[in-house]
Amino acid sequence: MIRTLAFDADDTLWHNETHYAETQEAFRALLRQYHDDAWIDERLHATEMRNLSHYGYGIKGFTLSMIETALELTEDRLDGVGIRQVVELGKAMLAKPVEPLPGVAEVLRQLAGTHDLMLITKGDLFDQETKLVKSGLGGHFSKVEIVSEKDEATYAAILERHGLASESFVMVGNSVKSDILPVLALGGRAVHIPYHLTWAHEVVASPEGAPFPVLGSIQELPNLLASW
Amino acid sequence: MIRTLAFDADDTLWHNETHYAETQEAFRALLRQYHDDAWIDERLHATEMRNLSHYGYGIKGFTLSMIETALELTEDRLDGVGIRQVVELGKAMLAKPVEPLPGVAEVLRQLAGTHDLMLITKGDLFDQETKLVKSGLGGHFSKVEIVSEKDEATYAAILERHGLASESFVMVGNSVKSDILPVLALGGRAVHIPYHLTWAHEVVASPEGAPFPVLGSIQELPNLLASW
Repeated sequence: MIRTLAFDADDTLWHNETHYAETQEAFRALLRQYHDDAWIDERLHATEMRNLSHYGYGIKGFTLSMIETALELTEDRLDGVGIRQVVELGKAMLAKPVEPLPGVAEVLRQLAGTHDLMLITKGDLFDQETKLVKSGLGGHFSKVEIVSEKDEATYAAILERHGLASESFVMVGNSVKSDILPVLALGGRAVHIPYHLTWAHEVVASPEGAPFPVLGSIQELPNLLASW
Repeated sequence: MIRTLAFDADDTLWHNETHYAETQEAFRALLRQYHDDAWIDERLHATEMRNLSHYGYGIKGFTLSMIETALELTEDRLDGVGIRQVVELGKAMLAKPVEPLPGVAEVLRQLAGTHDLMLITKGDLFDQETKLVKSGLGGHFSKVEIVSEKDEATYAAILERHGLASESFVMVGNSVKSDILPVLALGGRAVHIPYHLTWAHEVVASPEGAPFPVLGSIQELPNLLASW
């Protein structure tokens, strides 16, 4: 018997990776006179990975990594005007409206009538709270957990904190690494709804024969739950 | 009957504002050829306040505000080397060891034997989790709440989430604005332990006759509790 449905937020309930992709394109345009796109992308990714242990996830850390990469790629020649443009790219991301994916509002409204809905998202606390408010979806969730990492230990702590049994818990999300595998490892169920873009850091090889349902959209979720 | 003792973290359990003050001194030194100290401080504070709604609290947002202020104060003339120095100032803050204030470890160990200890801190989720780990104090707390703002609504939600009555709850912290007044407003008790520095944003006029105890150090807390 499924009691709690937990949802990832970024790229599950609303667009997120597209904003990073758009910003990264603007960042490339700024540096294209110095380097080719592939090298800019590679250096930015390397900077992000090196900084993850300092900054954690989120737009502010990404902005600082863009600044550092821009200095590295121009051997400190990027001028103040260029740096200011990078700072503004970050601010523009923070100011973006939050657009729920198709069907999200309707499906959450429907499922909130039959299940306890929880939001479990990783990233910057302030950013994620702001996005939840902007999305207008906050009212559907009885519990919101914003965490710095989504691994087995995190999910185990959440289940314990709320007195939930893993057999009655389903996680729904776009990341096999963060939303699916750790929940399955704890004996819970997980539903994968891929987004058309995946951040390189989140890519994992899908296990053989994918022992979890994969949906084309959240709109297929109520029927899947009804079939269980 | 006091059941739960909740502690603020920054400048209550460990040094924090001193790190900001040291960093701000290094920031002034970088810009001293352009402006006097008072004007640098004023512009940085104005930038921080303007950015609070974008960035929230924490070192990453502070670093981005320093970069923005440096560009403003030099009319974009600060070069890449200077910007890199500002980025490094932020990283150095993140890398600082976490030094518990005198007596904190002993007092927490003692009080954990008689009370349920909770940590309630505002700021960047990733930074605050990292600091708690570095402090070595995490084991004393049965509950940790990292929040984006500490106002009456936040405390009310925390009390409700943990099924706590305000009459059995004491908050201990260095900020009258964030740790004391909202808890008193909810009918809880609060103990003020001032730190020698207070961030301008946290300064409020203390209410007449201060209807809460003010201690010189956390080492006086067990005796105060025993006297209640």
